[in-house]
Amino acid sequence: MLADADVLVTGWGTTTQGCRLRELAPCLRTLVHTAGSVRTLVDEADLDRGLAVSSQAEGNARPVAEYTLAMILLSGKAVFAARHAYRAHRSAPDEAEPPPARGLYGTRVGIIGASRIGRRVIELLSPFDVEVLLYDPYTSEEEAARLGARSTSLDDLLARCQVVSLHAPLLDATRGMITAGHLRLLPDGATFINTARGALVDQDALVAELSTGRIHAVLDVTEPEVPEHTSPLWTLPNVVLTPHIAGSAGNEVRRLGDGAVREVERLAQGRPLAHAIEREQFSRTA
Amino acid sequence: MLADADVLVTGWGTTTQGCRLRELAPCLRTLVHTAGSVRTLVDEADLDRGLAVSSQAEGNARPVAEYTLAMILLSGKAVFAARHAYRAHRSAPDEAEPPPARGLYGTRVGIIGASRIGRRVIELLSPFDVEVLLYDPYTSEEEAARLGARSTSLDDLLARCQVVSLHAPLLDATRGMITAGHLRLLPDGATFINTARGALVDQDALVAELSTGRIHAVLDVTEPEVPEHTSPLWTLPNVVLTPHIAGSAGNEVRRLGDGAVREVERLAQGRPLAHAIEREQFSRTA
Repeated sequence: MLADADVLVTGWGTTTQGCRLRELAPCLRTLVHTAGSVRTLVDEADLDRGLAVSSQAEGNARPVAEYTLAMILLSGKAVFAARHAYRAHRSAPDEAEPPPARGLYGTRVGIIGASRIGRRVIELLSPFDVEVLLYDPYTSEEEAARLGARSTSLDDLLARCQVVSLHAPLLDATRGMITAGHLRLLPDGATFINTARGALVDQDALVAELSTGRIHAVLDVTEPEVPEHTSPLWTLPNVVLTPHIAGSAGNEVRRLGDGAVREVERLAQGRPLAHAIEREQFSRTA
Repeated sequence: MLADADVLVTGWGTTTQGCRLRELAPCLRTLVHTAGSVRTLVDEADLDRGLAVSSQAEGNARPVAEYTLAMILLSGKAVFAARHAYRAHRSAPDEAEPPPARGLYGTRVGIIGASRIGRRVIELLSPFDVEVLLYDPYTSEEEAARLGARSTSLDDLLARCQVVSLHAPLLDATRGMITAGHLRLLPDGATFINTARGALVDQDALVAELSTGRIHAVLDVTEPEVPEHTSPLWTLPNVVLTPHIAGSAGNEVRRLGDGAVREVERLAQGRPLAHAIEREQFSRTA
């Protein structure tokens, strides 16, 4: 069966058990993957040999961008801190000591990485009264402007944004890309959001900076994936730590399935794939 | 000065100290209010006598709609519960007992009240894969469709939506409008959001329904405004309680001031007010 297949639909659980897919399925012309990364199934050589690969990375980007947007919106009101203080004191916030609510109006939001998720976050921010800065080494000023952001350097972005959200892929070139020096550039009271990968950030530096209470963080990912039992991340009041839940969950998995079905329908109708991965793009994504 | 004034700019702190504004400022032709409700300053009779009143209710609606949108987005991932469990257990979520993450894809969101805030929430929901139902006795099916929602009855909305957000004004006709029977209609696991006024909802019934754990709630307002010290709302794990912070705070107050300045500029240029309150609308708002 697999040896004769023209089209293969794969998912999160699919494994080639150490073999190359191109050897298991030599006739394969199209791979329709119902999840994001296809790296465990195919490599550059498959694409060079003409295999068309469709991934639901776009659909997978949706919930992550939605989680990020929600956290950006709530950061302006320090909602998690306000909730915690309200529960702890069981009284109206002390007028003398108001929670550090800066509001969202005119806030500068920094997006690191014009990945699918980063782009979607920028798009979702368009109805709000915020200014978006973007750092991405592969995105020109014109392209950034077209997306709805202003292109700048990583240092400038970190120094000038009240909220910074990380959307870079984890590659050799990006591992540890956010250093202690970078974190120190963030303005007092800034919120740093990571829904990408913990290893993009110097974790010791992040914990040190957060331990001063100078900045806030929303961390859906850390390195290691679950922080060590004694990590301050578990208890710091200025940290919102969630267990890698920003991605597709619950009914959002159906979005990926629906998207894959539409790709197969397009193939059956002789139409081009809507979510084909381009060769150049493949090398730059995780 | 006030006796001769044509135009008066007022704000949250402005008081007429028990007098009628029309007696204090008989020449007044335009009132530009830098906040939402103008009820403490003017009444129907002022509008009938030709006083033009501009309010920043639209600007004031922005942050409330943004808080609501964020909570709708996060409800799909049960983010507050996931964060709490992650902190409590300091381990990856148990595969056998996953958090009740339904996801947002295809979720039915119910908006009660096509107020400025309700309309803005519907508008902000447009980029997301959700279906919006609207209950508003003054909004036709056609108008609802134009806003991006499907008009329905209150009972149908409550019975069919996974997330319900309340955006009605508190008037004699709406006090206690959400009863025990209404809350029982909500599907298991639904999230009820109230950023409007606590007194719109039968508070005893709400506490009783939440105490069963059957539904979740995000309550930025309660009645009384700060729950009694022994209220279960302080400790229930399925309740996100915040101290009436959804409205304009921090730099969002600047949005209201900017809006009022633009209104005065329009007056000076002989252009019509952008945010004049119409007579019919006045009677229906709080």
